[in-house]
Amino acid sequence: MSCKISLNDKFFAPRQKGNLSSTIPSALARCKETGRLDAFKLQWKEGSSEVCPHIYWDSDVAKVMEGMAYVYNEAPEIGKKLEELVELVISAQQEDGYLNTHFTVCDQDKRWTNLFNCHELYCAGHLIEAAVAHFNATGKRNFLDAMCRYTDYICDTFGKNGIPGVPGHEELELALCKLYRATGNERYLEQAKLFVDRRGTEPNYFVEKEGVEPVLLKNRQAHIPVREQTEAVGHSVRAVYLYSGMADVAALTGDKELMAVCEKLFENISQKKMYISGGIGSSQMGEAFGHDLDLLPERSYAESCAAIGLIFFASRMLKALEKSLYADVIERAIFNGAISGLSLSGDKFFYSNLLECHKGSLNNGHVSYERQPWYRTSCCPTSYCRFLPQLGNFCYRVDKHRLSVDIPVAATVTSDDYSAKITSDYPYDGKITVEITKGGTFELAFRIPQWCRNYAVNIDTDVECRIKNGYWRCRKNWQAGEKVEFILDMPVEKVFSAAPANFGKVAICRGPLVYCLEMPTDGKLSPFGVRIPLNAEFTLENLDELLPGTKGLSCEALYGDLPEELYSTEKPQYRTEKITLVPYALWQNRGAAQMAVYLPFER
Amino acid sequence: MSCKISLNDKFFAPRQKGNLSSTIPSALARCKETGRLDAFKLQWKEGSSEVCPHIYWDSDVAKVMEGMAYVYNEAPEIGKKLEELVELVISAQQEDGYLNTHFTVCDQDKRWTNLFNCHELYCAGHLIEAAVAHFNATGKRNFLDAMCRYTDYICDTFGKNGIPGVPGHEELELALCKLYRATGNERYLEQAKLFVDRRGTEPNYFVEKEGVEPVLLKNRQAHIPVREQTEAVGHSVRAVYLYSGMADVAALTGDKELMAVCEKLFENISQKKMYISGGIGSSQMGEAFGHDLDLLPERSYAESCAAIGLIFFASRMLKALEKSLYADVIERAIFNGAISGLSLSGDKFFYSNLLECHKGSLNNGHVSYERQPWYRTSCCPTSYCRFLPQLGNFCYRVDKHRLSVDIPVAATVTSDDYSAKITSDYPYDGKITVEITKGGTFELAFRIPQWCRNYAVNIDTDVECRIKNGYWRCRKNWQAGEKVEFILDMPVEKVFSAAPANFGKVAICRGPLVYCLEMPTDGKLSPFGVRIPLNAEFTLENLDELLPGTKGLSCEALYGDLPEELYSTEKPQYRTEKITLVPYALWQNRGAAQMAVYLPFER
Repeated sequence: MSCKISLNDKFFAPRQKGNLSSTIPSALARCKETGRLDAFKLQWKEGSSEVCPHIYWDSDVAKVMEGMAYVYNEAPEIGKKLEELVELVISAQQEDGYLNTHFTVCDQDKRWTNLFNCHELYCAGHLIEAAVAHFNATGKRNFLDAMCRYTDYICDTFGKNGIPGVPGHEELELALCKLYRATGNERYLEQAKLFVDRRGTEPNYFVEKEGVEPVLLKNRQAHIPVREQTEAVGHSVRAVYLYSGMADVAALTGDKELMAVCEKLFENISQKKMYISGGIGSSQMGEAFGHDLDLLPERSYAESCAAIGLIFFASRMLKALEKSLYADVIERAIFNGAISGLSLSGDKFFYSNLLECHKGSLNNGHVSYERQPWYRTSCCPTSYCRFLPQLGNFCYRVDKHRLSVDIPVAATVTSDDYSAKITSDYPYDGKITVEITKGGTFELAFRIPQWCRNYAVNIDTDVECRIKNGYWRCRKNWQAGEKVEFILDMPVEKVFSAAPANFGKVAICRGPLVYCLEMPTDGKLSPFGVRIPLNAEFTLENLDELLPGTKGLSCEALYGDLPEELYSTEKPQYRTEKITLVPYALWQNRGAAQMAVYLPFER
Repeated sequence: MSCKISLNDKFFAPRQKGNLSSTIPSALARCKETGRLDAFKLQWKEGSSEVCPHIYWDSDVAKVMEGMAYVYNEAPEIGKKLEELVELVISAQQEDGYLNTHFTVCDQDKRWTNLFNCHELYCAGHLIEAAVAHFNATGKRNFLDAMCRYTDYICDTFGKNGIPGVPGHEELELALCKLYRATGNERYLEQAKLFVDRRGTEPNYFVEKEGVEPVLLKNRQAHIPVREQTEAVGHSVRAVYLYSGMADVAALTGDKELMAVCEKLFENISQKKMYISGGIGSSQMGEAFGHDLDLLPERSYAESCAAIGLIFFASRMLKALEKSLYADVIERAIFNGAISGLSLSGDKFFYSNLLECHKGSLNNGHVSYERQPWYRTSCCPTSYCRFLPQLGNFCYRVDKHRLSVDIPVAATVTSDDYSAKITSDYPYDGKITVEITKGGTFELAFRIPQWCRNYAVNIDTDVECRIKNGYWRCRKNWQAGEKVEFILDMPVEKVFSAAPANFGKVAICRGPLVYCLEMPTDGKLSPFGVRIPLNAEFTLENLDELLPGTKGLSCEALYGDLPEELYSTEKPQYRTEKITLVPYALWQNRGAAQMAVYLPFER
């Protein structure tokens, strides 16, 4: 069944437009400048003054290509450029199917010798994802066939009787499932399952064959077999990519035990290890999950790719288990900590998404409080190229029997069987109208968000509806022109956190949006001088100049100047100041700023 | 002039006693177990199953030896053991004077090839300090002469016409000044000055000869010439060791320009980069200073060695400039963030001194919320061996013309010219009596602490006194039996910090002590649920069971249970709970605990 989801809301649609005009073109330019594209020409020689293709470069190019494939049919010039890149990438494939620029020209004798650190199988996974996207967009088999050849070689190498290793940076597991879906070749699914089940088993390949210190295995989720894992640990991007692959394998093979492991891991993340923004991975050391409730707002690492990866994981769980709690997490990340990494201009990025920063905050390498055009490790910028075109798929799910409205931003949804138009000012307003534009028999499922305490559903005809797994559901023969109106109460909420670092403070949220207080670095006031009275009343404020349609939240707050002396016994004096909070995702689009999500409260 | 300072207070004296019975013996045992002592036998061979002597092992042994030398004359068995170690160390010296276990047996052809990372000159500095201490304690020249030979070789190698490098881990600079003081050999002072002035100059040796990336130079304070440095940056232990050496060179050569640089750097640390505990170095990455006001209480790195190093730096500045502001910083560190790294049992250590932690806090490698018996990088445990015996010197300074009471803990001070007995319950009480026990003509100088808002001085005879540079001073012919009583008002203070992370919170201090709220990890309450009313009244509470004489601070505080859900809109309900704060330095001596120095306040 073919379907088309077109977003026309004020929050996501401009970002998707920017992907065509800015994010993809700038990523391509950076890939070109830095040698990532030319690397596929395999011309690098030992002793060259050029930098040797880095072990993760292929993945960056692959991720941009995947994004280009998703917009192939709406942007012909991007499609044309993609075809050139496909030819370029294919040209680097070796006789035996192997395709990796680094190990083909630099460490030629080191192929598969350092799975733990060297990203070889990770790059393969991203190339496969790009090839599947290209195939799905165009029906052309050239890239797909090349990657099948590479994958066959990988399966020969790492199959049941091959090298008993697993990827040091997970990703291939989920890519193999995608390739299985695209080709129907069971071998790919079997290899994915093998990688999942082999992980963390004894004798541990990383320790025995690559001399890895056992203490480091946790960072790669390889310390115990995955089916025994109950806590999300280690490198957070690797973790959610692995869990996504596990969820795929579980769904495709009907493996309930494995799915239960995924549920447990998801629960641990969402109930103990997730920032209010949906960001994850609070430790800069190892880019890793911290312990439960280690959710410090300053020095939150919260890598952009990790929040995006959490959405990948959650969307697989949602599809498999149809429970709104997965969409609740998607929503939290998609409107906040995932999109926050991207500037409104589309060409600047956070690698780490701080929840609090000031002039003196740590600002090094990946941690920065101004978005950067690129990073030497450029996973985050290139992630947006492929993430933005998929936004519609995270908001709506369409199949023959059901239209699932997971996140009701304004959109049109067209399928072979029915069509609908969703009108709303979501996430800024809770009134949503779903209008059937082409009739058909299907279930309309509408998620009641976790944040929503009161809602109403208005429908002209007398229908039978039910609430199941957090969704309002109505199955019937829908007629063109029928409308259902959902009214979600969307008051300003004061949110308290169980994380010790944030207790005594409050975060201000409205609907799915987390707000923050942003003040210019060179201004007189600091967000850290503010105290929010718990009875403060907020009013909506138009912030069209930031992004048309944006609503800020204003209130009268208490403000105390920070002491001039480093340590002072002088009691801070508070006065009243009007402050305006902005959606967290949109901060740092008006120049250098100090920012805080959590503010001390006045009881 | 010989003098003897004996502490008999309830805060430091037990730690000094513990150094003899526990800290030094346990450090020696660990040095033995880990191969650090045997390394000096130079028996390690390529291919051995034993671990090759690490590049910093020599420094660990040297620091323990330095500590042993300081207590040589009060603990004969330690003195005897020291003589054995001296023979052992000397036996490892090479023909040309070189003395380094790692480069003598492991990387034999790599001598002086990696000054940036390999600690060679750093180890030399610690060996020199140990040798000077041994010489001062015993008058024996064997160790001193051996180290002079090594130093001569270093001066030949790195002199004006030698290798234009500088230590990658500073320490040798100050050691050379010590050696100059012990021997009178001007060459050592010149080499110290050369190392100081060569640092950070172009062409940069580290970049040109060792291929160091320029961005890393800041971590070693080698990014610009030291005389141009105005901000304390980079690895904090390295920094304060360098600044100590700079202060030594400036004082010994009368270099006012260099001294002004030291003043500026000290000002930057004490006014912008110092935790309320006197800890410094807030960034775990690079063990480095953060930006100004980057003083997050959780994930404070605040290495024990850095706080101790700050005391070294401050004590040199105090001696040179006679201003109480330097003693104020010594006092802050010595009662709080420096001594906090040591357990009351004397044999467990913090490497990193957190100002806040909970069950979920990051707890890895050097960052731990339970003191450990040892660390692979064991600079901190061995630092205490040599720090504890020097405590008296940081509290009292004695010369022919002046007795300076910098920190008035109970003590006796005996010199050739006069003697005095200081009676007090400091740091728990502000009444201090200085009684002259052997008369003489000298200035009695008594620091008025920065935290003290009101004080009185009671003296029977009619004397002329003056306040200069923060000290009450009276020069006269003191008679045995004369007494001066100082009354320092010591109320509980609520201290507010200019660091954004701590605004909206309050720290509770009394006199020189910073207090913290410690609660058992497995208890019902968390320190993070507490709010301190700004009008809370505190009462002193005996905590003799912790360490005899210890006073806790109790008050009625507000307490709210942390939400059970990670994010909750339920307003926290507060009730009244009695809480007892303990001196920060003494936390985590009653089992695993959660702890916070800064607590949210209720206006």
